[in-house]
Amino acid sequence: MLALYKQQTKCLVALDSIIFGFDGETMKCLLVKRGLETQDDHWSLMGGWLEPKESLNEAAARILFQLTGLNQIYLEQLHAFGEPHRDPIERTVSVTYYALINVHDYEATISHAYQADWFGLQELPNLLFDHREMIEVAIQALRQKAAFHPVGFELLPEKFTLPQLQKLYEAIYQTTFDKRNFSRKILSLGILERLEEKQKGYSKKGAYLYQVKKQPAQDLHAFVTNVDGLFRDTLFTS
Amino acid sequence: MLALYKQQTKCLVALDSIIFGFDGETMKCLLVKRGLETQDDHWSLMGGWLEPKESLNEAAARILFQLTGLNQIYLEQLHAFGEPHRDPIERTVSVTYYALINVHDYEATISHAYQADWFGLQELPNLLFDHREMIEVAIQALRQKAAFHPVGFELLPEKFTLPQLQKLYEAIYQTTFDKRNFSRKILSLGILERLEEKQKGYSKKGAYLYQVKKQPAQDLHAFVTNVDGLFRDTLFTS
Repeated sequence: MLALYKQQTKCLVALDSIIFGFDGETMKCLLVKRGLETQDDHWSLMGGWLEPKESLNEAAARILFQLTGLNQIYLEQLHAFGEPHRDPIERTVSVTYYALINVHDYEATISHAYQADWFGLQELPNLLFDHREMIEVAIQALRQKAAFHPVGFELLPEKFTLPQLQKLYEAIYQTTFDKRNFSRKILSLGILERLEEKQKGYSKKGAYLYQVKKQPAQDLHAFVTNVDGLFRDTLFTS
Repeated sequence: MLALYKQQTKCLVALDSIIFGFDGETMKCLLVKRGLETQDDHWSLMGGWLEPKESLNEAAARILFQLTGLNQIYLEQLHAFGEPHRDPIERTVSVTYYALINVHDYEATISHAYQADWFGLQELPNLLFDHREMIEVAIQALRQKAAFHPVGFELLPEKFTLPQLQKLYEAIYQTTFDKRNFSRKILSLGILERLEEKQKGYSKKGAYLYQVKKQPAQDLHAFVTNVDGLFRDTLFTS
């Protein structure tokens, strides 16, 4: 049995994290300069190698912190990339993670001492290895999730207007939605509660403020991943 | 730069595949005896190690074929498992894949020459390493997918009744659904077409036959994974 293990070829395992940031208007992606690039004009995702005693989650969190100062970000595992020559120097399987954060909340953290910067999704620079493909897969995953889940609501103020929410979804999908269709569809999910208050100052009438209903807000992550809750409720109950 | 690579610790990368089978009534999981078990009564997913020149997808397909004879199965990548001691003999990161197939279609293949067998989801035997957790994660992923996508329709006859479809969904969710709610919700997805024909012999009136609408049926996989199609249509158009 041990002999069987000994015959196998080992390889490096890397973690690469895609951090999306929403600034109230547009969606950005966080990139760093790691010094692994053969050319100076290549940027990288937040990547590094798995260490012997770490789990994949622990390694992804450590690497993100070391490269950007970002801490306690909920990283969701995305996909493993393992084409034989994706890293030309050494065979490396990369497990990717992604997160969506509020750019303003972490401005101070990221701007200090790290070679990290935000890039608009339409203005990505030259990227290391298959990092552009990783970002594309992450965008698809984010869109897929956002189509059915309250993704990114934690990036909005606690009380928000439907136009503010629409901006978030338009940033995720890189498109514009019809205002009435968007309102109707998002309200049909049954996760928003309309408040008595209105947002003043932008228009004469003011826009109604909404908040995520109490139950999901208590534990948004559990709510999102609880298949037996949201998923089945959405499809199978009246 | 090369020195940086040389300092890193390599580890084994494994692929493990979870094959769910639907037999018209219940959902089963395919397991094998690999000879890696320290005790004889442990079964395993279809697992093996990544070889130097293979992509992850290629390795998963090769291993599945070698252990079961199953070929040309669409394997979807699920999740990477990398707890430091998940394999007690040697640090191994496992990338898992899953698929859902029709048990009857592959009966002849699997019953020949391979130590593979189907187990009901409620009657899983002792399993190697973290393979039970892998199966649980795969079940969640399958349920999540089935809540919004036409998952598993290819396991049904080309023309099927709603009760047949309901059996598939009940097997996926390991539960029973209210007949009227199920019909209403599944028809509201707009992917089924009711035919003029009825299925005879089971009841006096007969049950209407349905088929998946032409467009998605042409390329069900692309349809399922095309986020900009199904997802946005579902949420954002009228």
